[in-house]
Amino acid sequence: MNTATPERAVLADIAARRAQVAAALRQVLPERAVLSEPEDTRPYECDGLAAYRQLPMIVVLPDSEAQIVAVLQVCRELNVPIVPRGAGTGLSGGAMPIADGVVLSTARLNRIVRMDAYSRSAVVQPGVRNLAISEAAAQHGLYYAPDPSSQIACSIGGNVAENSGGVHCLKYGLTVHNVLRVRMVTLEGDVVELGGEALDAPGLDLLSVFIGSEGMLGIVTEVTVKLVPKPATARVIMASFDEVVAGCHAVAALIAAGIIPAGLEMMDRTSSRMVEPFVQAGYDTEAAAILLCEADGTIEEVEEEIARMTAVLNTAGASAIAVSQTEAERLKFWSGRKNAFPAAGRISPDYYCMDGTIPRKRLGQVLEGIAQMEVKYGLRCANVFHAGDGNLHPLILFNANIPDEFERAEAFGAEILALCVEVGGTITGEHGVGIEKINSMCVQFAPAELEAFFSVKRAFDPAGLLNPDKAIPTLNRCAEFGKMRVSGGMLPFSHLPRF
Amino acid sequence: MNTATPERAVLADIAARRAQVAAALRQVLPERAVLSEPEDTRPYECDGLAAYRQLPMIVVLPDSEAQIVAVLQVCRELNVPIVPRGAGTGLSGGAMPIADGVVLSTARLNRIVRMDAYSRSAVVQPGVRNLAISEAAAQHGLYYAPDPSSQIACSIGGNVAENSGGVHCLKYGLTVHNVLRVRMVTLEGDVVELGGEALDAPGLDLLSVFIGSEGMLGIVTEVTVKLVPKPATARVIMASFDEVVAGCHAVAALIAAGIIPAGLEMMDRTSSRMVEPFVQAGYDTEAAAILLCEADGTIEEVEEEIARMTAVLNTAGASAIAVSQTEAERLKFWSGRKNAFPAAGRISPDYYCMDGTIPRKRLGQVLEGIAQMEVKYGLRCANVFHAGDGNLHPLILFNANIPDEFERAEAFGAEILALCVEVGGTITGEHGVGIEKINSMCVQFAPAELEAFFSVKRAFDPAGLLNPDKAIPTLNRCAEFGKMRVSGGMLPFSHLPRF
Repeated sequence: MNTATPERAVLADIAARRAQVAAALRQVLPERAVLSEPEDTRPYECDGLAAYRQLPMIVVLPDSEAQIVAVLQVCRELNVPIVPRGAGTGLSGGAMPIADGVVLSTARLNRIVRMDAYSRSAVVQPGVRNLAISEAAAQHGLYYAPDPSSQIACSIGGNVAENSGGVHCLKYGLTVHNVLRVRMVTLEGDVVELGGEALDAPGLDLLSVFIGSEGMLGIVTEVTVKLVPKPATARVIMASFDEVVAGCHAVAALIAAGIIPAGLEMMDRTSSRMVEPFVQAGYDTEAAAILLCEADGTIEEVEEEIARMTAVLNTAGASAIAVSQTEAERLKFWSGRKNAFPAAGRISPDYYCMDGTIPRKRLGQVLEGIAQMEVKYGLRCANVFHAGDGNLHPLILFNANIPDEFERAEAFGAEILALCVEVGGTITGEHGVGIEKINSMCVQFAPAELEAFFSVKRAFDPAGLLNPDKAIPTLNRCAEFGKMRVSGGMLPFSHLPRF
Repeated sequence: MNTATPERAVLADIAARRAQVAAALRQVLPERAVLSEPEDTRPYECDGLAAYRQLPMIVVLPDSEAQIVAVLQVCRELNVPIVPRGAGTGLSGGAMPIADGVVLSTARLNRIVRMDAYSRSAVVQPGVRNLAISEAAAQHGLYYAPDPSSQIACSIGGNVAENSGGVHCLKYGLTVHNVLRVRMVTLEGDVVELGGEALDAPGLDLLSVFIGSEGMLGIVTEVTVKLVPKPATARVIMASFDEVVAGCHAVAALIAAGIIPAGLEMMDRTSSRMVEPFVQAGYDTEAAAILLCEADGTIEEVEEEIARMTAVLNTAGASAIAVSQTEAERLKFWSGRKNAFPAAGRISPDYYCMDGTIPRKRLGQVLEGIAQMEVKYGLRCANVFHAGDGNLHPLILFNANIPDEFERAEAFGAEILALCVEVGGTITGEHGVGIEKINSMCVQFAPAELEAFFSVKRAFDPAGLLNPDKAIPTLNRCAEFGKMRVSGGMLPFSHLPRF
């Protein structure tokens, strides 16, 4: 008996299972909405976290809520796990398929149902692209505020699953602050509406739990988003600093002065030098760090805020300050920041993007720690980040073809996240946990806290079929990972000694 | 055998039970922390909803987290229901005792643990008064934004339980927008920390579920609140309108102009005439409605916003406009609004304060409906409300000594709430459901939605001992109330036909 035999047996089992489940799904969906051949399912084998791939058993593309209810019923009856998928741009592997599971894509629910300028809201289906909402709202002078870098491609359903942010979330908030209502289907097939148009609602705030739940609680079928007025104008300051830590202090000084910039981003020299040849954004590549600080609002508000920010930045020791004079120049300043990830791909065969968030006052300490890790792991790291909300995006540059570099990059990333938790931060700011950061969740949370998450997960999905093994690690997994939180540990969370 | 016998038997049972539970509690608490005599427990028989009273079996006053854990263990082992209580200022009966239950007061956990001006946050115990946080933060130029009318007395633990608001919540948000982290004890005795200092956190957003959960999920032991800089200045406009509906349109016009006032309150003539003799706020008592619109920020910001608001209000047909010229005048303008409830108590033997929230565009329609109900029920209603966020506080004036008036007031209130739901709003904006609005929850939510609430409740409290029979009605209760939501009904919520 050789090792090929069990493999063949497993493959035969999967083929039989695929035939059974596909047949059941074709009873409730049109033929073209069920993909079961590998050549058709191949495009779904990964999301934006392309390092992790898995061919799904089946992909379904329903185009109505009734079809989604029917798909869930089939999966429930046949005990098939379901991986919900938006546009597949997620960066943490939340939509990575399961070998014996169904990928449920909401791409075909792509209709803008209603646009209400008076109440400043839009009702959209989950497959509508983020930017398409703002494009449709533009005729009313409105837009949808959260703007992830992938906003051309990513869909609102995926934004809800991951609680996506963007460069303007310091002032305008994350997805959870910009969604009024979600209509969703539970695994049991119940259609439930969470939230509403009022500022507060009675009952438990299940809308907030649902947003960012990474497909574990239900399938989104409709989203009511808040729209905000397009500011009359916006200008951005580019400030240079001779030392990274001075830039970090400037961020703290701006916030301490009571200013909430529309955007407050920082890039270190590695990043600006990586980006500048690629996009000619006009960055000061001699500076140790540059800060981009945006003001938006009425012309008077922007004038005043630019003046106040300039004064604070000068006091904080900026070595040079440039203010965008035209809309074209403003967009040029932003283009470098927004193209940091593609630029990393241009200068390095591979890169690994982290997403830790820390208290702002710890920025200097954590950047210092990352600099030491660059030496320890022998890898370069470019730091671009949402400085205003303490959300770091270290880009670890490596070459997967060099033996050991992928492993070193992974270890480097895990150590960055552990440092983020150690200083009172978290392992993800806006990209979600998915499969990528699931082990780091064992570092972040105590067993009692993970159990609280699971108890809510079970409340919505007792069978555990919705995106299993993502986002929340089991206690067994944490034990295997060797990072079970213990009582009296150094981390700023607590639980009772009985664990 | 007469009817007195079973009553005596019940009383004897309760006395025996009280002795048993009190003895067990005295094993884990100091003597003075366990109140079991009616003369000691009497002050706890109601909260701010004084129309509903019930003497509790026992009151406990723990002064540490460890004592709370111990109390919960005793109650769990002896199967005793627990009613958590903050300062007892709640308006919906959330802290009303249960005859065979324990009231757990957090009043003795009243320490400000840490004040961090740099990260703009404070760590406080649940019994700390709302206003005491701002008083302690004042030395750093900071304050805690949510300001319920009861802020002198109410505690942050109660604010968390009810997700309290205030007159500034349009701009600064409710409790949920101003709390970073909650430390709490589950019924099982686990200490869990929810939330964190970062803008987003991985895992499910249990912090948002916990805030506003009315004591059903756990006992708060520590709260980390966000502090915001005290604005340099603030001014308020008082605008008069000849018709209520014109005032409502002005509210919509302000929001549509992209202005987010620091406060945006409306009072009808019944209210201003009720208040004026009492506080001499300088109100225009000839106007059908007055609007109070506050701007805060830097002097330049406030100047500009006052000018923009004045222009919008004039265009919207204001018949008179006054702007506060001094801080004393600003406080005078607000004093009338803040004293509306006591003023109602001055002109009417009893009043019933509602708390419905509606989409802003429906303000005119709902006020018209309330005017018709005044005729139908033969009772006066004074309307004061947070116009900016559509949160109505109709004060129904009645005299409980006149046969039938209490019942008419209750029916009047229920009809107002049903109208709020009908136009797409909710039955409570900031006062919570408690016991007062529990039947109206059957109007607001479909069975699948109530079941979703219960499933989360059970996830935290499988035994159902934490504040049972509050906030979420059972399906049986809704059936008895005769308001079970049915498929195809007129209400803007949905569920599957299987219910």
